[in-house]
Amino acid sequence: MPELITPRVLKGFRDYLPAAEAARGALVDQLEESFSSFGFVPIDTPALEYAEILLGKGGGETDKQVYRFQDNGGREVALRFDLTVPFARFMAEHADELYLPFRRYHIAKVWRGENTQRGRYREFMQCDFDIVGTDCASADADIVLTIDEAMKRLNVGEVRIRINHRSLFNRFLKACGAESSAVAVLRIVDKLEKIGRAETAALLSQEIGAETAEKVLRFIEPRKDFLGTLESMLSFCDPSDEEAKAAAQRLKDVYDIAQTCGKTSSLVLDPSITRGLDYYTGIVFETNLAEMPEIGSVCSGGRYNELASLYTTRKLPGVGASVGLDRLLAALDALGKTRSASNSAAVLLLCLDRTLLPRLHGIATSLRDLGLGAEVYPEPKKPAIQYGYAEKKEIPYALAMDEETLRRGVYPLRRLSTRSTEEFPSLDALAAFCKAAR
Amino acid sequence: MPELITPRVLKGFRDYLPAAEAARGALVDQLEESFSSFGFVPIDTPALEYAEILLGKGGGETDKQVYRFQDNGGREVALRFDLTVPFARFMAEHADELYLPFRRYHIAKVWRGENTQRGRYREFMQCDFDIVGTDCASADADIVLTIDEAMKRLNVGEVRIRINHRSLFNRFLKACGAESSAVAVLRIVDKLEKIGRAETAALLSQEIGAETAEKVLRFIEPRKDFLGTLESMLSFCDPSDEEAKAAAQRLKDVYDIAQTCGKTSSLVLDPSITRGLDYYTGIVFETNLAEMPEIGSVCSGGRYNELASLYTTRKLPGVGASVGLDRLLAALDALGKTRSASNSAAVLLLCLDRTLLPRLHGIATSLRDLGLGAEVYPEPKKPAIQYGYAEKKEIPYALAMDEETLRRGVYPLRRLSTRSTEEFPSLDALAAFCKAAR
Repeated sequence: MPELITPRVLKGFRDYLPAAEAARGALVDQLEESFSSFGFVPIDTPALEYAEILLGKGGGETDKQVYRFQDNGGREVALRFDLTVPFARFMAEHADELYLPFRRYHIAKVWRGENTQRGRYREFMQCDFDIVGTDCASADADIVLTIDEAMKRLNVGEVRIRINHRSLFNRFLKACGAESSAVAVLRIVDKLEKIGRAETAALLSQEIGAETAEKVLRFIEPRKDFLGTLESMLSFCDPSDEEAKAAAQRLKDVYDIAQTCGKTSSLVLDPSITRGLDYYTGIVFETNLAEMPEIGSVCSGGRYNELASLYTTRKLPGVGASVGLDRLLAALDALGKTRSASNSAAVLLLCLDRTLLPRLHGIATSLRDLGLGAEVYPEPKKPAIQYGYAEKKEIPYALAMDEETLRRGVYPLRRLSTRSTEEFPSLDALAAFCKAAR
Repeated sequence: MPELITPRVLKGFRDYLPAAEAARGALVDQLEESFSSFGFVPIDTPALEYAEILLGKGGGETDKQVYRFQDNGGREVALRFDLTVPFARFMAEHADELYLPFRRYHIAKVWRGENTQRGRYREFMQCDFDIVGTDCASADADIVLTIDEAMKRLNVGEVRIRINHRSLFNRFLKACGAESSAVAVLRIVDKLEKIGRAETAALLSQEIGAETAEKVLRFIEPRKDFLGTLESMLSFCDPSDEEAKAAAQRLKDVYDIAQTCGKTSSLVLDPSITRGLDYYTGIVFETNLAEMPEIGSVCSGGRYNELASLYTTRKLPGVGASVGLDRLLAALDALGKTRSASNSAAVLLLCLDRTLLPRLHGIATSLRDLGLGAEVYPEPKKPAIQYGYAEKKEIPYALAMDEETLRRGVYPLRRLSTRSTEEFPSLDALAAFCKAAR
């Protein structure tokens, strides 16, 4: 007999057992419904692409985290490490077949050779949605409204969608004479919540001097409401700065749309939100759960000028967001709102006698026709084993038919959670009862 | 300006544009509903695993087709090439955490460096469902009933689930004295439909002589019905052969269950079905669409003795099937039954004037609250462009609100397919109309 191979997964990878996979599936379904209701459509792209496409001609900084290799045909290939780069390639390749503005969502796995000691996984699912081919406030607002709708459907409680505009921050820095330090300042400010005001002040002072650092900290201080904060931010800029005014107007336009939709309660203008990436050029935003701010943003994104400039001269401005699926799953779990059992059948038909099996399958078929999932335990085992199976699988009801109940045509339904049994005179009555209890 | 990179995917890989991805998503949703209704639960496993796990200690025949490489940590890894091997590893690793019998489905991508000239893809989605941890007719029947249910839900017309039993074939060969040629004979018979009776006879004669070849061809000839065929098959075996009798009894038990469920019309006992793989030890089956037999089997599988013997000494007999998603999608497409537009919003709100945008978003919000997907065209463009967008995206309705209709509070809804417009006095009436028309 050959030596056994130890069954194990690679470090940083994981199996999804049924409860976890069902919870993830339910979350994805609800997100898809939200996206669809705003006209977003799904796409998919290959997991494996030319390394050049994913990494650019040179390779680049991300290189070490990327799963890259030569395929059997000698091609340099790599597993995608995000959904943004494949989407850029996709838009450059298919723009002529598509309708612009193009609003798509994409929910798929990506791979990164991250340091797993930081609790990161090397395989995880990303969920992006974007509107590409237009630079207007209406699209910006639609992304924000979609986040709001998705969070409402997920029933995660109150959310705060914290929004800002990159230009407004940059023009403020210009007014301070700190424009050349913009990237460093944005990165420091981005960490404000993590490191606190004092350390932020210290780091900023090193970078741009104590006086300007103080001004930055006053600039990013929250005011009483959206429009008040907007007014304050603009007052820090040069009064003749048209770019600053345009940025403020954009934020105002987004706010106006949200207000007409009755959706301003979750919208916060937060001057400290900058998003680290250089990529963003317009509005940027993060989303926090009021009940669990400590898990960080569950949906972040912003506007960018050129999605696909590596692959095409066509201008493709866009706005989009990425949902943090793992964080949302953890939040739903902590809030007791995962729906892990939703993929189990509603009724387990116990097998007390092998000769009854055909009739049990017949009853299960009838229950399915009545819209109720039903499963037949496939062989005669002790009832305790079969009930234990139902409990472990979170099947809510068990039906133990024997010769006598089959002859009488009655259905003794046991509710597993209470261990109480009720006898039903027909399958219709039984199905109606189970469906009403859901 | 840097040189542009040509946007393209690897040979054998493909993008899914929205219509194709929505069709695939709808198919997967319907399959999942069918699986759930029989108590199957979802799992997921990593795309990347230790090469040793996927290929066994030696490597093996499949090696050349496998995407295999060293990761950045020097580990020998490979992309999964099917869902069976990862499932075996999964069961060996998690059997103690799970409830047996374990019924799971798994729908996920796999990768094979196939020769693309045969029209094969190097990345494709597989869909497997299995019941593991029991060797009984009830589980065999449940797999067959699940296929029947799934095909009914997919509305693909009449199906033929052609079933056979590996042992019955093997014991028949033993009775002919051709047992040692079993593997070769099974492979030849498996091609009967492709190559025809004459060539099958010629190939069989080479292998086992003309007389036995003739016997094989008579053995696999279809009879008038399930039980008649079963009787004929058994008559070819040694009357004292207990294994043959047990195999026939198993087929009879499966038939009895299907009969009690009223599901025998799609069930055909076909002695020529053998499935090439050595892996199978009990019942085997293939599924054909009556309207499109030429596309081949859309769901195949069978019973196996030991799922995970590479990784564990625990006996894990099982039965399962694999759905041919690409074939089913092609069939649904040919039958005009893809539901590609299902992921578009129902109504496009045209933007005739930028200042109206907040109110358009307000109307879209109300429509969503009424259960109708709605999308706002984000900026003022010529109506022809906006209508063209709606048509290309298969959005069924357009709503062109202007100052006047907004003031009057009426909603002129245009049905894109007929270009006819009807005015609604309220959004409730409009939503009710659109929903009724779906």
